[in-house]
Amino acid sequence: MANILYGAPVGQAINEKTVQIVSRLAEKRIIPTLATIRIGAKDDDVAYEKNAVKRCETLGMKVITTVLEETVEAQTFYDTLSGLNADPAVHGILMFRPLPGHIDEEKARNLISPEKDLDGGSDLSLASLLTGKGAGFAPATAQAVMDILDYYQIPVKGANVAVLGRSLVIGKPVALLLLNRNATVTICHTRTVNTEEVCRNSDIIVSATGQIESFGRAYFHAGQTVIDVGIKYSEEKQRICGDIIFDEVEPRVDNITPVPKGVGSVTTAVLANHLALAAERTISHE
Amino acid sequence: MANILYGAPVGQAINEKTVQIVSRLAEKRIIPTLATIRIGAKDDDVAYEKNAVKRCETLGMKVITTVLEETVEAQTFYDTLSGLNADPAVHGILMFRPLPGHIDEEKARNLISPEKDLDGGSDLSLASLLTGKGAGFAPATAQAVMDILDYYQIPVKGANVAVLGRSLVIGKPVALLLLNRNATVTICHTRTVNTEEVCRNSDIIVSATGQIESFGRAYFHAGQTVIDVGIKYSEEKQRICGDIIFDEVEPRVDNITPVPKGVGSVTTAVLANHLALAAERTISHE
Repeated sequence: MANILYGAPVGQAINEKTVQIVSRLAEKRIIPTLATIRIGAKDDDVAYEKNAVKRCETLGMKVITTVLEETVEAQTFYDTLSGLNADPAVHGILMFRPLPGHIDEEKARNLISPEKDLDGGSDLSLASLLTGKGAGFAPATAQAVMDILDYYQIPVKGANVAVLGRSLVIGKPVALLLLNRNATVTICHTRTVNTEEVCRNSDIIVSATGQIESFGRAYFHAGQTVIDVGIKYSEEKQRICGDIIFDEVEPRVDNITPVPKGVGSVTTAVLANHLALAAERTISHE
Repeated sequence: MANILYGAPVGQAINEKTVQIVSRLAEKRIIPTLATIRIGAKDDDVAYEKNAVKRCETLGMKVITTVLEETVEAQTFYDTLSGLNADPAVHGILMFRPLPGHIDEEKARNLISPEKDLDGGSDLSLASLLTGKGAGFAPATAQAVMDILDYYQIPVKGANVAVLGRSLVIGKPVALLLLNRNATVTICHTRTVNTEEVCRNSDIIVSATGQIESFGRAYFHAGQTVIDVGIKYSEEKQRICGDIIFDEVEPRVDNITPVPKGVGSVTTAVLANHLALAAERTISHE
């Protein structure tokens, strides 16, 4: 029986730190302010935005939401985004992705300066992960993985870690965060021929493939920690699923995150924390 | 007995491609032009510069060298570098590093725009490696490793690769280049507890630790390819050494680069090639 690494207490610990920053800033009459920018009304986006707004407001921070029609002209979108980025009253920006096809997502990501890029999507934010320097934040989900490991005191330094998946949003950034913390990281992906062996040789497995319930008992054994970043709705199973076959794996390993109530429930706390940090940095730079 | 992967024929093949680009550009009356910028007169820098100048000129390209005193004011250096970067007659820049302590190296690296950053040191160049997009070049040594593997037809896709070392100049960039080519990459470093095991489980080992002759027979076996990026002068042995104990390892593995005459002899060819490509891009963007 594994120790179940629930996200809620991790999020709560992050929120406590955020509240401390918010009250320090309140003394200086600064309210950290998030600007969200969304095109259309995809269910996932609306739900995530609602969560983020609620979380920020609960923690004493402000949110300005901007919603544009699916038919918005690309230039109008870029101008709106650049306007938010230039606005000194806005401390952080959350842009919902993917964007519609007629908008250049690469261009859009890079219109957000690293100081305001709470979800770490711009090239300069990503470069910060490589160099270990600079003003950039890590993508919220990648940071959430690190926060879970730290909260539950899973040793990272010198640990062998398998990262499954190499996306820009989670696989590559979390691999770099782990590397910066002195883990020995192997990145597996669709062309990897021996994922099973790599997992078995690892102390920690971070799975971010988005492939519903793809990794079962053969990949795991006692002593391991499994962080399941996958979160997808399975029509077949009529429920939210992770990458890991939880019922098979949970009895074998030492620690495992559930899906839902695992990594996903930490990301909005991370975003809110990044917002408070971004606001705090504006005064420490004065 | 291993197949010895000499750098010279790889460099030659790259130079042939470069010459083709140079002659296409000559028809349009464009001569690719490199600007080098060096502070002081460290032996290594002077030797490398001499090589680069000779290589570029042999291939029909032009070099402008700028040499500044060790005592140069930081702002003067930044201004000189920015001037080269802004000059439309300069297609590529090679800045010698490390810089003296009174100059902010991070700032300096980022004064070179990715289009002219032939040795891939700026944050935006590094981000290009992460995203697989953008105008950035890979650091020349990291690219040289890939060119050697390709020239000798060592399969990279799906291969298990151990990268030893995680520097920004070679370890991390070569890991990303390999990952972008569908290798399964493990990055080992000083905090890795089982480097020997990781090496033994790998098809290709790229060593870039700069630790003189640190990896001997226990790390290797038949079937493997070893790329030794290390290149340091050993006072004790009175010769240039790599990371690998060549005499022990060469009889065991299938392929190995020598030191010297291996990776090091490919990098100036790569730089010259990047210069030609940078010049070519200026017209394709017109």
